Amino acid sequence: MIRIGIVGYGNVGRGAESAVLQSEDMVLTGIFTRRAPESIHPQRDDTPVYPISRLEEPGAEVDVLLLCGGSATDLPLQTPELAHRYCVVDTFDTHARIPEHFANVDAAAKEGATAAIISTGWDPGLFSLMRILGTSVLPEGTGDTFWGPGVSQGHSDAVRRIEGVADARQYTIPVQKTMQAVRKGESGFTARDKHTREVYVVLKEGADPQRVAQEIITMPNYFDAYDTTVHFISADEMAAEHAAMPHGGFVIRSGRLGAARQYDSLMEFKLELDSNPMFTGAVMAAFGRACHRLHEQGRRGCFTAFDVPLGLLSPLSAEELRGKLL
Amino acid sequence: MIRIGIVGYGNVGRGAESAVLQSEDMVLTGIFTRRAPESIHPQRDDTPVYPISRLEEPGAEVDVLLLCGGSATDLPLQTPELAHRYCVVDTFDTHARIPEHFANVDAAAKEGATAAIISTGWDPGLFSLMRILGTSVLPEGTGDTFWGPGVSQGHSDAVRRIEGVADARQYTIPVQKTMQAVRKGESGFTARDKHTREVYVVLKEGADPQRVAQEIITMPNYFDAYDTTVHFISADEMAAEHAAMPHGGFVIRSGRLGAARQYDSLMEFKLELDSNPMFTGAVMAAFGRACHRLHEQGRRGCFTAFDVPLGLLSPLSAEELRGKLL
Repeated sequence: MIRIGIVGYGNVGRGAESAVLQSEDMVLTGIFTRRAPESIHPQRDDTPVYPISRLEEPGAEVDVLLLCGGSATDLPLQTPELAHRYCVVDTFDTHARIPEHFANVDAAAKEGATAAIISTGWDPGLFSLMRILGTSVLPEGTGDTFWGPGVSQGHSDAVRRIEGVADARQYTIPVQKTMQAVRKGESGFTARDKHTREVYVVLKEGADPQRVAQEIITMPNYFDAYDTTVHFISADEMAAEHAAMPHGGFVIRSGRLGAARQYDSLMEFKLELDSNPMFTGAVMAAFGRACHRLHEQGRRGCFTAFDVPLGLLSPLSAEELRGKLL
Repeated sequence: MIRIGIVGYGNVGRGAESAVLQSEDMVLTGIFTRRAPESIHPQRDDTPVYPISRLEEPGAEVDVLLLCGGSATDLPLQTPELAHRYCVVDTFDTHARIPEHFANVDAAAKEGATAAIISTGWDPGLFSLMRILGTSVLPEGTGDTFWGPGVSQGHSDAVRRIEGVADARQYTIPVQKTMQAVRKGESGFTARDKHTREVYVVLKEGADPQRVAQEIITMPNYFDAYDTTVHFISADEMAAEHAAMPHGGFVIRSGRLGAARQYDSLMEFKLELDSNPMFTGAVMAAFGRACHRLHEQGRRGCFTAFDVPLGLLSPLSAEELRGKLL
């Protein structure tokens, strides 16, 4: 059994917990939190909950830690720090800082003789794998990634920071017409061509809806480059209809093969998820298995999804995989 | 530059040739054939064509051989034999014999200190990778692979062997209704539920269409477990409308996550190919690159798609990949 520890018990932490409990070759040996341990209620009563400082003491019964904190402030420090002592998997997704994060974690893991896999989840993660397959098999072609329909936490948070907004939920919607054009090999699309944004807002009493709507649709980077629709709803409607965190998306690669480039080839990967954090946790758990195995093979340092043979994600042996899934 | 040799110049060999010529980090150093070399007309006049026996002589300028023969009789002998002296990639797809083929190639490659990747292409190959991702991330769930719409060579050949048949082309069609049910997590479908078969037949003069149709639809294994439709057409229609070799398919995985298994998650991969052999050749070329790199890393023996980190498929460096595609 692979002994898994979960660091951070937010939505992704709960997703990782569920996934570990669904995995027959894993045991959840602890949840490690910055909150008061007694305030945490794990899915199973017998799962130990520890203060995160426990990981500094010797003797933690952990083969791999799944780090479920945020990319903005938690993971840049936490992943290298913990990689000194543990095999770790994270979901670091601040794209511009991946080279720096990789270097930090790689140095720590090599010093600590551990293995770390960063930037797992579905994007980065599974979608990255699809982009590699697409561009490697069809080097002459076009392709794009579309996200949604789904809730963007970052955009929802940005709207919540506007004065007069009590609550908000932002859905990113891929534009079907543009997806169809990408499938046919067209390219050169703008942000506005690719996605629309739908915002559901609960106003504070007395707030001016017109001013709030205007502040949303003109917000730089977040909304001004998109066609955005704002809907004002009640707190009850928000609770009843927008509590879930669905997400998903598409990775499309369209290429041309043959001496005259006469053979169109389309590769497309789709995710449709009722719960973004649950699925993210499930991907982390699978990479946790791979991380443990890389370490057992003597591999040390930092890895990404690109470095992991996919057979290591499965609980089945190499022989079983060749017999059943090849 | 990776020096690639192609063994066998049928449809897949021509696909591999096209793909190698599209790859900026590869050079095609030879086509090796059992036919008379002068009967082969490569895409570029300056591509050398050799008798296959040339590979027994020392000094062949080849880093990796792409073996483009058939699984029935060519590859079971050719892959282990050539793996003694060369890094090789094949598309062996006789499922029941993969363990035996793997063992033979592994022994040969270890003796010869080479690296071999067997059973590449899209199924086995890319579809196998999708099956591993699906079952590893969503262990509780159902899933299935659907093929087509596309031409099945094996089924077309089987019809051509019937007395009175001058030519035949068989299309495998996935049943949309069943695909939709699999996406929703249903399972337990039969062969008949999943695919229908459409056969286009050119009769020899005087042949009885009713007898031929009956022989087709009752043919054990090939057709009797499916709903099959037979169309009789002229040789001109066959040449005009059925010369292409389109194919494709779907790998669907539907799983449930969360404490109460309340979160549906759908992963789906689709291929739509104007030309099955061209795409197969393109996948082989990418695995040829990976094979060369595994060998450069000191890896020896037989591998499958499950053992290959996907980053090795791309001409980009690990740093570039982390920066651009992660």
